[in-house]
Amino acid sequence: MREYNTEIISVGTEILLGHIVNTDARDISEMLSKIGINVKYHTVVGDNPERLRQCIETAKKRADIIITTGGLGPTCDDLTKFTLAEAFGVKLVMNEAEKKGLYDYIHPEMPFTENNLQQAMLPENCTVFHNTCGTAPGCAFEAQGKIVIMVPGPPKECNAMFALSAVPYLKSLSEEEIVSHSVRIFGIGESSVDQIFRDEMNVMENPTMAPYAKECDCFLQVTAKAGSRAEAEKMTGPVIEHIKERLGEYVYGIDVECIEEEVIKLLEQRKLTFSAAESCTGGEVAKRFTDIPGASSYFRGGVVTYTNEAKEKLLGIDAELLENYGAVSYPVAAEMAEKVRELLRTDLAVGITGLAGPDGDGVNEVGTVFVSLATENETFVRELHLGTGRSRSYIRRMSGNHAYDMMRRYLTGLKVI
Amino acid sequence: MREYNTEIISVGTEILLGHIVNTDARDISEMLSKIGINVKYHTVVGDNPERLRQCIETAKKRADIIITTGGLGPTCDDLTKFTLAEAFGVKLVMNEAEKKGLYDYIHPEMPFTENNLQQAMLPENCTVFHNTCGTAPGCAFEAQGKIVIMVPGPPKECNAMFALSAVPYLKSLSEEEIVSHSVRIFGIGESSVDQIFRDEMNVMENPTMAPYAKECDCFLQVTAKAGSRAEAEKMTGPVIEHIKERLGEYVYGIDVECIEEEVIKLLEQRKLTFSAAESCTGGEVAKRFTDIPGASSYFRGGVVTYTNEAKEKLLGIDAELLENYGAVSYPVAAEMAEKVRELLRTDLAVGITGLAGPDGDGVNEVGTVFVSLATENETFVRELHLGTGRSRSYIRRMSGNHAYDMMRRYLTGLKVI
Repeated sequence: MREYNTEIISVGTEILLGHIVNTDARDISEMLSKIGINVKYHTVVGDNPERLRQCIETAKKRADIIITTGGLGPTCDDLTKFTLAEAFGVKLVMNEAEKKGLYDYIHPEMPFTENNLQQAMLPENCTVFHNTCGTAPGCAFEAQGKIVIMVPGPPKECNAMFALSAVPYLKSLSEEEIVSHSVRIFGIGESSVDQIFRDEMNVMENPTMAPYAKECDCFLQVTAKAGSRAEAEKMTGPVIEHIKERLGEYVYGIDVECIEEEVIKLLEQRKLTFSAAESCTGGEVAKRFTDIPGASSYFRGGVVTYTNEAKEKLLGIDAELLENYGAVSYPVAAEMAEKVRELLRTDLAVGITGLAGPDGDGVNEVGTVFVSLATENETFVRELHLGTGRSRSYIRRMSGNHAYDMMRRYLTGLKVI
Repeated sequence: MREYNTEIISVGTEILLGHIVNTDARDISEMLSKIGINVKYHTVVGDNPERLRQCIETAKKRADIIITTGGLGPTCDDLTKFTLAEAFGVKLVMNEAEKKGLYDYIHPEMPFTENNLQQAMLPENCTVFHNTCGTAPGCAFEAQGKIVIMVPGPPKECNAMFALSAVPYLKSLSEEEIVSHSVRIFGIGESSVDQIFRDEMNVMENPTMAPYAKECDCFLQVTAKAGSRAEAEKMTGPVIEHIKERLGEYVYGIDVECIEEEVIKLLEQRKLTFSAAESCTGGEVAKRFTDIPGASSYFRGGVVTYTNEAKEKLLGIDAELLENYGAVSYPVAAEMAEKVRELLRTDLAVGITGLAGPDGDGVNEVGTVFVSLATENETFVRELHLGTGRSRSYIRRMSGNHAYDMMRRYLTGLKVI
């Protein structure tokens, strides 16, 4: 099958000023990758005809499909259509159906200005993409051996038009299906994962795998192309199995976004509840868990005990224990989890106490964190030293990941610490 | 002053696949616009040396400053540095200080691999940008009449390094001083702010002001250029005063990142403490506050009472009250704040109970939230209806903003509700 290399050109000074982030290019790229079309470049250029013209010339040299976002509306900044038409030697003609649509859409609300009509001018013989969320239509045409697609800039209009009109148009050009899965990993870093698989990855063509780093974990993306979805799916299976075999218990899930999402699934399967007592993470573990809709079925609640007094008052932790061992200690972490578990009568509970920095406590180094998991029969504690050079947000997030990782391991029968 | 045209090249296949959105280019563009440097192009290219080389050649023709993001880490995909060095004919040499730093940073936790060292190879005679949030250093050098800057791809690292190292480096190239202040606003939206000031903004040249929207608040950026910092500073003063006069109590702070940062300042000035009882925000209010270093001096702790049982157990809220009014109600919100205030003996306390969605409770609409503030003499409650079409994360964040806004108003003697 022919490979279509694609370039997305986003036209808008507001992106270059940093006022908005280019979500259009992301949304389109995601949709294209799902239908097996390679995006090779994103370009952003301002509302300037000469610079846009040059970008189109560059794109003509390196891409088969050129997609533009933005610059189709009625304001004087909107020049994409005219510049593209000129660059490809196509004529713009008034599209009567779109013209009528514009009158119907705009008339009731606002004065209909001459430049509104400009939106209904479209390349001769193009495929028209009607705008379901706004006024400016988009379109596709072929010229000079290239496929050209124009969609509007406002994210909702761009996204809807691309999904409803551009994707079907492009699919009709391809006979291949693509399937992609992400294998999520916690406990070893991206560079180790890369080293383990590098030799294999270098020679893989279809399916492929590639490592990606997140702030506190990483994943391997496995992608296959084939004549049918089922066939592509079948090709990814053995690669995923192979990764699981090599990385063992470091693999925490497939196609989940984060470790807490996997933990929710496990709690759901086993109909178990949990609670949390947090010191240095300051509510982040609870917050991350409750980011996920439906968390209330598994998460009963928690306490944020940011001071010794709060640990005594909210959890009933012995002043003596705090005195003898210090707040950042193994026994205090264990007690925190045990006490909140009793208090809220949950199956599991986690406790976190440590130093997220920038200041230390005079005893422990910044990055020292004790993470505990209390269960019916046993309490586990992990002692972490996350490094004095790490940011507060890294230490907090990583501590949370360890708490979730301990839950995940406990719930799947793996060694917890 | 010379005009520096800038191109930002982001290197990363994950952006072209639509896995992530290119926030790096946005963040950098925003920072550059504040120091008066024009961004003319954004380019995204995959982890492919030949295509990257071609993009660099294109950039050389149309930009004076070339900034790359991504491709500095230890994996085999990371090739920006080598390709740039080759394109500009500069030699890479091992930077001993960064090499040592890498050992210290990585050693405690993970195996130190050979390809980690690659990160400390830097262009000869470059200005090194130390990475305060990760391992890979960045750098800047001048060659072939161009200024070249490399920063890492992970957004936090990119953002911090650009702000701390690249901006001062670029500022030193210009003889003009630019001063920029952001006037932060909560309670009215960006479009209203835009409408109020539009006519003035259109005719302003130096200083300028421009409105920006954040997820749950907005700000006006006031920027002045002059021969000296003091002079530029003096020019911004009257504009800021004018904005404060027009918007009154909606202005919550100058040059703060978020409303909680302003609240911390106010608590610090008045030597007061606070605590929080959260239901639908699930720990987010505590988490946001404790994101800020030093929060432990003002924030004693909190509870996350995600179920009725947790509200009874942790706070001692009457089962009858919950029964009669429902968990999402005015009196329950008031009690939550009052009880946590008593329990942790703080000066102030906030309580939040509501429906973040997607599911409702059969009584209240999604987006219904009661936010309370308990003080020594009085308890205030705001009833919010944040809209059924809003996302869970918006409702949670906005509820938190209201809690902080009530504290801010109380602490500055404004009307709280």
